[in-house]
Amino acid sequence: MTTVDDQATGQLTDEEIFSAHEAGKLAIAPTASLADPRALSIAYTPGVAKVSLAIAADPSLAARYTWTHRLVAVVSDGTAVLGLGDIGPRASLPVMEGKSALFKTFGGLDSIPLVLDTTDVDEIVETLVRLRPSFGAVNLEDVAAPRCFELEARLIEALDCPVMHDDQHGTAIIVLAALRGAAAALKREFAPLKVVISGAGAAGVACAKILHAAGVADVAVLDSRGIISKGRDGLNPVKAELAEITNPRGLTGALDEALKGADVFIGLSSSKVGLEQIQLMAADSIVFALSNPDPEIHPELAAQHAAVVATGRSDFPNQINNVLAFPGVFRGALDCGARRITENMKLAAAEAIFQVAAEDLSVDAIVPSALDPRVPLEVAAAVAEAARRDGVA
Amino acid sequence: MTTVDDQATGQLTDEEIFSAHEAGKLAIAPTASLADPRALSIAYTPGVAKVSLAIAADPSLAARYTWTHRLVAVVSDGTAVLGLGDIGPRASLPVMEGKSALFKTFGGLDSIPLVLDTTDVDEIVETLVRLRPSFGAVNLEDVAAPRCFELEARLIEALDCPVMHDDQHGTAIIVLAALRGAAAALKREFAPLKVVISGAGAAGVACAKILHAAGVADVAVLDSRGIISKGRDGLNPVKAELAEITNPRGLTGALDEALKGADVFIGLSSSKVGLEQIQLMAADSIVFALSNPDPEIHPELAAQHAAVVATGRSDFPNQINNVLAFPGVFRGALDCGARRITENMKLAAAEAIFQVAAEDLSVDAIVPSALDPRVPLEVAAAVAEAARRDGVA
Repeated sequence: MTTVDDQATGQLTDEEIFSAHEAGKLAIAPTASLADPRALSIAYTPGVAKVSLAIAADPSLAARYTWTHRLVAVVSDGTAVLGLGDIGPRASLPVMEGKSALFKTFGGLDSIPLVLDTTDVDEIVETLVRLRPSFGAVNLEDVAAPRCFELEARLIEALDCPVMHDDQHGTAIIVLAALRGAAAALKREFAPLKVVISGAGAAGVACAKILHAAGVADVAVLDSRGIISKGRDGLNPVKAELAEITNPRGLTGALDEALKGADVFIGLSSSKVGLEQIQLMAADSIVFALSNPDPEIHPELAAQHAAVVATGRSDFPNQINNVLAFPGVFRGALDCGARRITENMKLAAAEAIFQVAAEDLSVDAIVPSALDPRVPLEVAAAVAEAARRDGVA
Repeated sequence: MTTVDDQATGQLTDEEIFSAHEAGKLAIAPTASLADPRALSIAYTPGVAKVSLAIAADPSLAARYTWTHRLVAVVSDGTAVLGLGDIGPRASLPVMEGKSALFKTFGGLDSIPLVLDTTDVDEIVETLVRLRPSFGAVNLEDVAAPRCFELEARLIEALDCPVMHDDQHGTAIIVLAALRGAAAALKREFAPLKVVISGAGAAGVACAKILHAAGVADVAVLDSRGIISKGRDGLNPVKAELAEITNPRGLTGALDEALKGADVFIGLSSSKVGLEQIQLMAADSIVFALSNPDPEIHPELAAQHAAVVATGRSDFPNQINNVLAFPGVFRGALDCGARRITENMKLAAAEAIFQVAAEDLSVDAIVPSALDPRVPLEVAAAVAEAARRDGVA
């Protein structure tokens, strides 16, 4: 059987992929000349001593005279890499280098992959606290749930700089933007949509929270044991918190129960969904099958019932890709010197993405192209403005 | 009074120095294209997953398909920055960025500054052990003595990769090369030279050790309390070790005692030396006044007695600059996959630098120019060969 995954990479040969990765995907490019003795004495000794002394006298000058102010540490322990699971820090490196390349290409930000040979939350926090003078922000990446929630919260507490777990909030931002786009394309009201989220990992939890914050009252979240509800036994603290703000109708049971009459399905686990399940949904329904590279249901199959279908894939319409969110979010936060990333900054990022899509909206174009150069600029501006409104910049 | 320091930077305006440091001196340059959807699907999802899975199956492939194999972590706690002392990690950053720029320009190696907000040896070791999958080698920089000795030894023990404290060994390598050059220019035998080293910090200790290893039997080292000798009270372990291999004539007392009849003075502290002290040395003497940017004695003054004078400065002949050593040492070590940097690799580096100088030797050209493009290549080749001979590659 040919899986969707095979189709996706089938157009790419292994040779093409591996040769593009030879020696990695990043390099350092000095921005100051060192080509002659005079240049050397400006950028290195003796000239550099004046800059070091100036920073020693006023540490805030490090933001101006070093690269750290615009430097994002892309941090992972390799425990939840793409859909591949716990493959370890070394194997996560190609993804982190890709992320750094995306930061540069789409956000104009420098970044360095820091992969950790520990999965202990205390140790990761301690390590980044010790390295704090080396960077300006932290993009957490591919850390497994539920540890990622505690880790992110602890880092936000410990570091006076923007910290964001992209698998949570980058995904949540673009899902919110896309859902606003889908509703607008269908000329449906946004807030009354009945939403079902399959998956209570990093992305599922963050999506449920941002939709709640954006005013969607009826969201049901499912984990491997079914619909999360207040009465359910053995909920961990994250799911218990989720139970408080979701599932207002008190649904219980499996996916079919949640899908009956629902308007929106958001797939954020690798659990497959059949057309007969999608057909339980209301008319004019919206399906985001975001498991990557192998969606929960093939988009053409889902389209037999749904009015809008989106995936994480570039080879179908409506690609829901974090790259629309994280470069602009970090760019905006660093541009304005934000000390943290607030909920309003994330909501503002989603709104900015939606506003770009709104200029040319259709059921097959609910989000801008992943390569749309307007997006990071608009997102950065909106995020910086929200940071100032929230008083964190 | 105009100090030498003022003269050195007097040719440079503050505006020129600070504007060259705006936004720092480093940038990330992605080496893989991300400009179109196909490129994105090769360098990021879904293509990257194949590379991550390959590394998960065979971790040694990280050396081939990530940038880490050629990546040097430039690590400092900011406790002994240039001659400025303990100015802290943030203020050390311009120096570390300069070092990274030098690694790229002269060694073709990528590197990232990692500055640490701790001076605790255990914590620094622990931090780098946790980050081990992120880099291929460690250049320790500007860590105060005597802590630097323990820190380097502990890191060599803990990490299976090249680790070198450049203030120790980079300096020692180029000092050895320069002294070989000076002896050759004066047609003097090398091994019988009577050497005085002023300063028992990082550089002084390493210079004494490498000269001993290179066959110089009569080396005397001074700290702030005078000549280090076996009988002296209160020697720390590093100095006690030094007392065992230096000072064969059992000298005691201050600098004047050591200089009487000496052939070589190597200044590696900021203590000033007068012409009348240099005049205590033997005929045809050699003076390396390496304190930077303010040499222990002005080179033109020293030249009234000495036959060869060298400094760390680019505006006088015979500039003794670490940049002749460290790019090639790390390049050679990483090229051959060395697990550590051995004494023979350092000796080979010094010999390679001397051999380049030997092609056009004079009392005013005992070392190659700091910008000589032959040096890093020759050093790298010699270091890699020594690593193979020592069985560490």
